[in-house]
Amino acid sequence: MAWWKVSAGNDVNPELARERESPSFNLETLINVLDGSEEETRLRRSVVLAVIRDPVLSRADLYFKSRSERYEGAVRNSFHMKNKIKALGWANDGPEVGYVYRALGGELALNIHGVFVKSIMALGTDAQIAKWIPLANNYNILGTYAQTELGHGTYLRGLETTATFDEKTQEFVINTPQITATKWWPGDMGKTSTHAIVLAQLIIAGRSYGMHPFMVQVRSCQDHSPLPGITVGDIGPKMSFEHIDNGFLMMRDVRIPKEDMLSRFSEVLSDGTYVKRGSDKINYFTMIAVRVSMLRGEVLETLMKACVISVRYAAVRRQSELKPGDGEAKIIDYQTQQQKLFPLVATCYAVSFTVKYINELYNDVYEKIKAEDFTALPELHALASGMKAYLTEVCSSGVEICRKACGGHGYSLFSGLPSLYTKVVASCTYEGENTVLHLQTARFLIKCFAGAQSGQPLPPSASYLSSPVSRRCQASGPSGFLNPDVYLEIYKHRAYRLIASAANKLHDLVQSGSPQYVAWNRTSVELVKASIAHTHYTIAKTFATKLNSVSRDPDIKKALKRVCDLYALHGIFTDAGDFLKDGYLSEKQLDALSTAYLDLLPLIRKNAVLLVDAFDFSDEELLSALGSYDGNVYHNLLEWAQRNPENKKVNPVFESHLKPYLQNTPSKL
Amino acid sequence: MAWWKVSAGNDVNPELARERESPSFNLETLINVLDGSEEETRLRRSVVLAVIRDPVLSRADLYFKSRSERYEGAVRNSFHMKNKIKALGWANDGPEVGYVYRALGGELALNIHGVFVKSIMALGTDAQIAKWIPLANNYNILGTYAQTELGHGTYLRGLETTATFDEKTQEFVINTPQITATKWWPGDMGKTSTHAIVLAQLIIAGRSYGMHPFMVQVRSCQDHSPLPGITVGDIGPKMSFEHIDNGFLMMRDVRIPKEDMLSRFSEVLSDGTYVKRGSDKINYFTMIAVRVSMLRGEVLETLMKACVISVRYAAVRRQSELKPGDGEAKIIDYQTQQQKLFPLVATCYAVSFTVKYINELYNDVYEKIKAEDFTALPELHALASGMKAYLTEVCSSGVEICRKACGGHGYSLFSGLPSLYTKVVASCTYEGENTVLHLQTARFLIKCFAGAQSGQPLPPSASYLSSPVSRRCQASGPSGFLNPDVYLEIYKHRAYRLIASAANKLHDLVQSGSPQYVAWNRTSVELVKASIAHTHYTIAKTFATKLNSVSRDPDIKKALKRVCDLYALHGIFTDAGDFLKDGYLSEKQLDALSTAYLDLLPLIRKNAVLLVDAFDFSDEELLSALGSYDGNVYHNLLEWAQRNPENKKVNPVFESHLKPYLQNTPSKL
Repeated sequence: MAWWKVSAGNDVNPELARERESPSFNLETLINVLDGSEEETRLRRSVVLAVIRDPVLSRADLYFKSRSERYEGAVRNSFHMKNKIKALGWANDGPEVGYVYRALGGELALNIHGVFVKSIMALGTDAQIAKWIPLANNYNILGTYAQTELGHGTYLRGLETTATFDEKTQEFVINTPQITATKWWPGDMGKTSTHAIVLAQLIIAGRSYGMHPFMVQVRSCQDHSPLPGITVGDIGPKMSFEHIDNGFLMMRDVRIPKEDMLSRFSEVLSDGTYVKRGSDKINYFTMIAVRVSMLRGEVLETLMKACVISVRYAAVRRQSELKPGDGEAKIIDYQTQQQKLFPLVATCYAVSFTVKYINELYNDVYEKIKAEDFTALPELHALASGMKAYLTEVCSSGVEICRKACGGHGYSLFSGLPSLYTKVVASCTYEGENTVLHLQTARFLIKCFAGAQSGQPLPPSASYLSSPVSRRCQASGPSGFLNPDVYLEIYKHRAYRLIASAANKLHDLVQSGSPQYVAWNRTSVELVKASIAHTHYTIAKTFATKLNSVSRDPDIKKALKRVCDLYALHGIFTDAGDFLKDGYLSEKQLDALSTAYLDLLPLIRKNAVLLVDAFDFSDEELLSALGSYDGNVYHNLLEWAQRNPENKKVNPVFESHLKPYLQNTPSKL
Repeated sequence: MAWWKVSAGNDVNPELARERESPSFNLETLINVLDGSEEETRLRRSVVLAVIRDPVLSRADLYFKSRSERYEGAVRNSFHMKNKIKALGWANDGPEVGYVYRALGGELALNIHGVFVKSIMALGTDAQIAKWIPLANNYNILGTYAQTELGHGTYLRGLETTATFDEKTQEFVINTPQITATKWWPGDMGKTSTHAIVLAQLIIAGRSYGMHPFMVQVRSCQDHSPLPGITVGDIGPKMSFEHIDNGFLMMRDVRIPKEDMLSRFSEVLSDGTYVKRGSDKINYFTMIAVRVSMLRGEVLETLMKACVISVRYAAVRRQSELKPGDGEAKIIDYQTQQQKLFPLVATCYAVSFTVKYINELYNDVYEKIKAEDFTALPELHALASGMKAYLTEVCSSGVEICRKACGGHGYSLFSGLPSLYTKVVASCTYEGENTVLHLQTARFLIKCFAGAQSGQPLPPSASYLSSPVSRRCQASGPSGFLNPDVYLEIYKHRAYRLIASAANKLHDLVQSGSPQYVAWNRTSVELVKASIAHTHYTIAKTFATKLNSVSRDPDIKKALKRVCDLYALHGIFTDAGDFLKDGYLSEKQLDALSTAYLDLLPLIRKNAVLLVDAFDFSDEELLSALGSYDGNVYHNLLEWAQRNPENKKVNPVFESHLKPYLQNTPSKL
């Protein structure tokens, strides 16, 4: 019986039970490996159980809810969880909170209120923290963080909102000078917040001092109506995130006291003198923190869920005959289906280990920064940018591949897959648009490449740019490619070649008279490719390296090695052109590698269901008629359809439109 | 002033006006080329105007509507249009109907009622046609077509619903023997239909005769309640198609008279004798007809709209500095943005000409079939299968690329893009799952390849498999690749190589002892690639060929030639590995080709807005705050957000959840 089941309940569909009968490894051990330890598995499960057994938090009828019902539900969940976390004695910033988010599939409100709190802590003076934090922690005020404007995104210097210092009244006057300056997108602002940290151009005596954070009250705490000068509302429906009230905000001569500029790093004195203090590199670090922290809960786990659903469904669904006369075959036995799903399962493993690695690196750098050592920051920034861009793209397109691999049923919300896709794909454009991020990583790589040419030491993740690369792959025969040393060298070679080639193009263009910015723009398609190749190499390397340390269990090691081989060879098989380009691989070698890759699929197939069982999601987390542990997909679909409130109502269209036509029909045809 | 505007209205945003100032060709001429003729442009516009100026049919607040409001609106539109078409004297099956569908973005109900009518015409006897068609045409009965079952899709022989002949009563007894046999997905069935053509296994005296169509009444025409033995309802929410009531249907001992089996091709006599008559190949042809007919309205035009929206937005949106100190640049000036959007614009042109070609071929074959000549059917089937699979994939992923290229605003429903994507992507799994379809095309190609080896004549679209292919590309330098003869040869070479290589693998596997079905399955990933390569070649060839005939205007010819070059070179640039594989292109040639491709981007950029203006959608059709003709994107977004009914209501969450916390807050902070 699965750990989250209260009673034995439905029997498992024999089609799925059979897939679990002769595992090649101990499932529980693999679950512990993914969690990091036995204790972590235990903690995660206890939090998930506390959430999914609480009837107030039930998501059972989520797919029938309207946008406003979703919003109200998320607010209810948030207030309920606040009390529950207190009652259970969990820390507000411990691992439990992450597991709560996982258990509820993110169906919580007031997420940006959390950012509001963190921003006050980071940007406020001690006095400001003492004033605002207790109010915010008790929900006596509800805040948001208002940066992005209707006409301005990633490029912060382009923001137009102004905060003009009025020396006479010792106030700032906040204004939205034109329509493009309307604050747009802040979560929780549409219908909830009373306060906002507004990013605005500070103006003193006609001179601009750049972007600064200001505390602005937007709604009354007494009756929730907008304050004078404030126009605020919801920006309207989106592709997903129905439960979040993203908002807009226009301000007209809104006056706030001088004390309400958040002033840890800069301050305006009463005579209008502007004072800057300390380094604000820590701000920059916050941006990285968000990108790192979203990778597991928002990105990786979404692909994991999609893999669980589509692999289990593929082991139950039968379609067409494979062997003539043998009846319909499980779709998981078709090579084309395996080629869609198994590389994505392997991606989940690769990304899982990579996210751990990035978090370790992040913590290291954080410790250094606290000791005022900022040297490792550029590398972390480049790594986090490239990873955010690459992983959000790979994971969201992967979810969609899983969805389509479920055929028609994948299009029903009951499959769980449409909602996973429409939500995760937002991550490609929020927290930095992906192309912009890849170009930031590319800038770092080009700098490293130039450094290597002049003999400078390079940060670890780019150190391969200092060593010469081999000109020809030495492996032969399919089995020769089932070797991490071989395929990592192939990935390294590609990354090196693409970085070098972009650097050379840049150099040539500048030499032939192009201004630097023109050269950069004309090379940017290739620069993005270089960043992707570097990031892909980093992931494959991390996975292959972790193979040796994550477990001493030989069965687990063997299973993970196979998954790692599949991950790496699939990437080369798919982007063959990049690898063939300079003859590093011969045509014959590529054929051998393709054979090695395709021959891995039936081997992975044997443990496919177990490999996704290891992601250890309860049915309540998956919320999928196709992906439940028991595999009773048709039963689930029918039962969910019949539960649809629409099926219990009389169709009003009969009276309004159909009846006049139908009533003339003879009763006996 | 645009042709669909009633009054001059808003001025065009100068950012966009500038893009239209110095066209390299006559826009109206290009519009006529795409429509096929001046007359066709005139007809299309007149239909669109009749629809968008009719207040009953307004889609203005579509993005705020609930699922049931969408359904009710679609039913209202359908009944209204039925009367309007009559009043305007349009034919029920003329080109006007297609333009109505276009003008309403498909927001119509009773679409499967149309399939119901066509099926009776195709499958019914003259007596059955005489009985049912007048009732159906007058909407005295509302029908659907029930084929797919919960557990069974593409593989028709797997369907489980039974129709057992009862000789005593001269009836058929229809049954859903188990849950997997539940009819699932039929449009209009969820809440609307009174009748259904049910596909069921015919059973006479214990023997099964395969799938046959039966007319079954499911709901009363008097009060719309389900008839005895019938369980019918809506299958629940989907990723899109909110306005369509896809349904489920279970039947328990439902008795229908013997006369209600549709009997044009087979009949059961009163003594239980089964009689088959004539060829039912025409049925098979119907399936092709649907795949061909969906390509323009459902697939191509969706990508066209996405291109219009994203290109216009890219010409208005400014983001980051390109040239330092020059202020924020239009995002359309970034190479990475051009590389995302322009190949998709080119794809619209390529597909537009290809769809015309397929329709011509379809009409030819139809004429032949009417003369009982079925020889061209396999080629048409292979072509339609491959095109449906390839184009649905390319166009839906293209729409999503456009959407993401609009950054955060592309995620708002107001952009129009999320709805385009979530709808068009359904076409990848309906009317034949794409992988299954590619494998059908591959089967045809493998047969042709074998035929070529033994000197048999091949159908035109595969005739290249009879001629030897050149071993090396002869072009040199970037300009050498701006030549259709050169790039078509490259595409041909790839298709030939992949087909030959899959055929050889199949042959080798069978020679080494694999059963045929095992060999086929183990080659299927490569077979799909072969089908894609063949289809891609066909599209490039069609575009390049049409260049010579679609217009005599030299400016238009020049512009289209450039678009064709971009289309073809982009495909090679993207899938370079496929083309490099056997050394047909050298590394140096690929570099030259890449340069040629990247250098085309700034040339296309000059006319980019005009190239999408030529798709000639009115604002009402686009329904996009980002894509309107006047380019006033920020004004539109804000106005639409403020029109949101949610912004006019008091937030109930304030009373229920927030007030207890907020009311303790001091009124002066």
